[in-house]
Amino acid sequence: MQKLLTPELHSMRAEIITIGDELLIGQVVDTNSAWMGERLNEAGIELYQITSVHDNREHILKAIDEAFSRVDIVLTTGGLGPTKDDITKNVMCEYFNTTLIEDVRVRTHIQDLYKDRPDALNRLTATQWLVPESATILPNRVGSAPIMVFDEFKVERLKFKVNETSEAVTSDSQLSTFNIQPPKFLVALPGVPHEMKIAMTEQVLPFLRLKAKGERREARDIVHRTILVHGIPESKLAILIEDWENALPAYIHLAYLPKDGIIRLRLSSYGEATEKEVQSYIDSLLPLISDYILANEDISLEALVGRLLKQHAMTIATAESCTGGRLAAALNAQSGSSAYYMGSVVAYDNSIKEHVLGVQQDTLMQYGAVSEQTVRKMAEGVRALMHTDFAIATSGIAGPTGGTPDKPVGTVWIAWATPTATEAKCFHFGASREREQITLRAVTEALVRLVKCLKSKV
Amino acid sequence: MQKLLTPELHSMRAEIITIGDELLIGQVVDTNSAWMGERLNEAGIELYQITSVHDNREHILKAIDEAFSRVDIVLTTGGLGPTKDDITKNVMCEYFNTTLIEDVRVRTHIQDLYKDRPDALNRLTATQWLVPESATILPNRVGSAPIMVFDEFKVERLKFKVNETSEAVTSDSQLSTFNIQPPKFLVALPGVPHEMKIAMTEQVLPFLRLKAKGERREARDIVHRTILVHGIPESKLAILIEDWENALPAYIHLAYLPKDGIIRLRLSSYGEATEKEVQSYIDSLLPLISDYILANEDISLEALVGRLLKQHAMTIATAESCTGGRLAAALNAQSGSSAYYMGSVVAYDNSIKEHVLGVQQDTLMQYGAVSEQTVRKMAEGVRALMHTDFAIATSGIAGPTGGTPDKPVGTVWIAWATPTATEAKCFHFGASREREQITLRAVTEALVRLVKCLKSKV
Repeated sequence: MQKLLTPELHSMRAEIITIGDELLIGQVVDTNSAWMGERLNEAGIELYQITSVHDNREHILKAIDEAFSRVDIVLTTGGLGPTKDDITKNVMCEYFNTTLIEDVRVRTHIQDLYKDRPDALNRLTATQWLVPESATILPNRVGSAPIMVFDEFKVERLKFKVNETSEAVTSDSQLSTFNIQPPKFLVALPGVPHEMKIAMTEQVLPFLRLKAKGERREARDIVHRTILVHGIPESKLAILIEDWENALPAYIHLAYLPKDGIIRLRLSSYGEATEKEVQSYIDSLLPLISDYILANEDISLEALVGRLLKQHAMTIATAESCTGGRLAAALNAQSGSSAYYMGSVVAYDNSIKEHVLGVQQDTLMQYGAVSEQTVRKMAEGVRALMHTDFAIATSGIAGPTGGTPDKPVGTVWIAWATPTATEAKCFHFGASREREQITLRAVTEALVRLVKCLKSKV
Repeated sequence: MQKLLTPELHSMRAEIITIGDELLIGQVVDTNSAWMGERLNEAGIELYQITSVHDNREHILKAIDEAFSRVDIVLTTGGLGPTKDDITKNVMCEYFNTTLIEDVRVRTHIQDLYKDRPDALNRLTATQWLVPESATILPNRVGSAPIMVFDEFKVERLKFKVNETSEAVTSDSQLSTFNIQPPKFLVALPGVPHEMKIAMTEQVLPFLRLKAKGERREARDIVHRTILVHGIPESKLAILIEDWENALPAYIHLAYLPKDGIIRLRLSSYGEATEKEVQSYIDSLLPLISDYILANEDISLEALVGRLLKQHAMTIATAESCTGGRLAAALNAQSGSSAYYMGSVVAYDNSIKEHVLGVQQDTLMQYGAVSEQTVRKMAEGVRALMHTDFAIATSGIAGPTGGTPDKPVGTVWIAWATPTATEAKCFHFGASREREQITLRAVTEALVRLVKCLKSKV
């Protein structure tokens, strides 16, 4: 099945160019693009391609040119720091045929930003308030790198739009004064994720949404609907839903995304189907796979567990050996988790299992730390210690060392204690997996147990 | 300063094309490319560009063509699953003008792989042993997707090189029979990270290294040297080392990589300088910034802490509130961490701080959970509970809610207890940061305290 990704369908189509040697030598993982892609889709803009290039003049110039040959909107990240290795601003000046001038508003903003850090206010920082004359400057509320909007066909300088109090410009009336004309423009954003996210959220996305709204007849809705599936191999799932899949219209696309033991089944439409039509296909899919559905939406397992615990007004604690705190971290990653998450004991050493969680020395000696007996006692021990409704415990061999013929690397015991019973299950995640991968699988399976346990309470 | 990235310098230059809608709609973060980039650099191959494209025939074909216009080696990831949304294999057949045929060795391998999972062996899985006739098939020891090597200018089918026991082919003599001719070729890899990593490590990198070795006169060494710096703003650091930086030859490039409060200062050379020459510049840099150096290498803080603890034969535990288990997870992420890491208490709820860590109710009532008094008691409490030499504790307001005028979001207290004393420090990571970012900064600062503490013991 081919999707309809022909250019004429997508007047609102963007590309991202990430600029920085650190991405290409593997020193930094690009987390920005996925975040931006999700937000662009929500705003009705398809992200067509992501291109990562070196901090190199020719490379950046060529990438911009190629991107504009495919789409109208180009977003770049990176290369906007005050040090010599960052050349993005100067290269942009060259591409858009403009020069740097001092911007008093940016200067005031940076001086204010660093007023308690005189160390950070120096002649290199001062280069940050030199901005391309033809660019519209959007405020970077939390950093010194100005965010620049270039219209390929205009060289008229536009005013700095942040008001004196550094508040974000988000209202329609203010935004409409930006005066960026279709069809083509480029937004240069900082590469520091938290600066990029704030600028995107407060400045760039409102501006893009406004554009999408203004061009509604051309811009199409992008619809993605996802179902979380667990407990069935990808190929078996595909055979199970084959007739349903074959009946899908060509403009609704099905994707299988297996990761860490979960399959995300996603239906997408890029402008040809309404949300209602996509939903009707989801509705006819659900009965076919009801035994395997964890959630009828694209949600993290930890958010799902949190929501279910809140619904039941119940609390949880964890006792972790091989997962080493990652299960705790997943459970408290949500804001508001203090309503249901009480705490954890990471019992890495056996002495902690014994003295803090109350696993008997005999149990540890006779069955070992990675055993049903030990992991059950860990779950019950932390549940009693922290006075919670639920508790979950993990003990396993994450490797690469520590495996035995009986208990090879990848063996993980998980136990869950509820107000009425304690259950345990052994998993084999495979000796060929890396330490991190085995740990992630264990966290996923622990959360899946919790979801099932909590759903059965409904 | 411009780097010398002219094509003639780099006969061994590669690009990555990542294939999959999930990357462009932001459902999945591409962690593969960074991992591959690092390994390619180690093998003396520069990664010139990363391009992420849709599961779309025209898009994939165009991306391959464009990549071959810039480099000789193209690696693709993704789109090799058995379901209909994965089209990479068929598109490759089109690009390289070949057709699919059954490969008996691949079939045997897959049947063996799934012998304990009859569920996963079905007619869709059977499509996985259909392989492009002109491709060399490398074994995928842990998955069903065959790894395919295409030589742009050859259409002669080469033999499946895995032996009967599915062992990796790594010796020079075996590899040399692969008969892939320069100049241009493409390797199609699975997108599942752990399958990709095993295939790269066992199959693709040995093959590429052999090529690099055979073409040594043309292929240049790539040298990267990194120093970890902390406690100085990026711009001030740049001014401090300005004279030194200006004296660098044009073919040695300096980069500043700030992240989570650490600056990675990296010197790179792509073939013009020897490792010794790069090292001599590092040697002259070190005295200039000695007050700020955490490490004279590109190492994670948790690995550095682990090494220092091992050297001193000392143990550690953590007590965490706002970091919620992430500090524990960092400390036990290293294989062998059981030698020094004993365990942790995640004391999210105040009752856990009181009853498990022994923080007095009075202290919590009078000063609050986020206070010097509480965090000191947390550190001392977990150190006593787990009988360790060191302990570190965190308590803060990660947000987005919970801030007060006195203690705004971003306020984090960190305490470290040693055999001789307990110290504490308050950090302000800024209310504008996200919950996750504040947590990461707290983990970083806690690890920095530990490094400094452990180094002062030497």
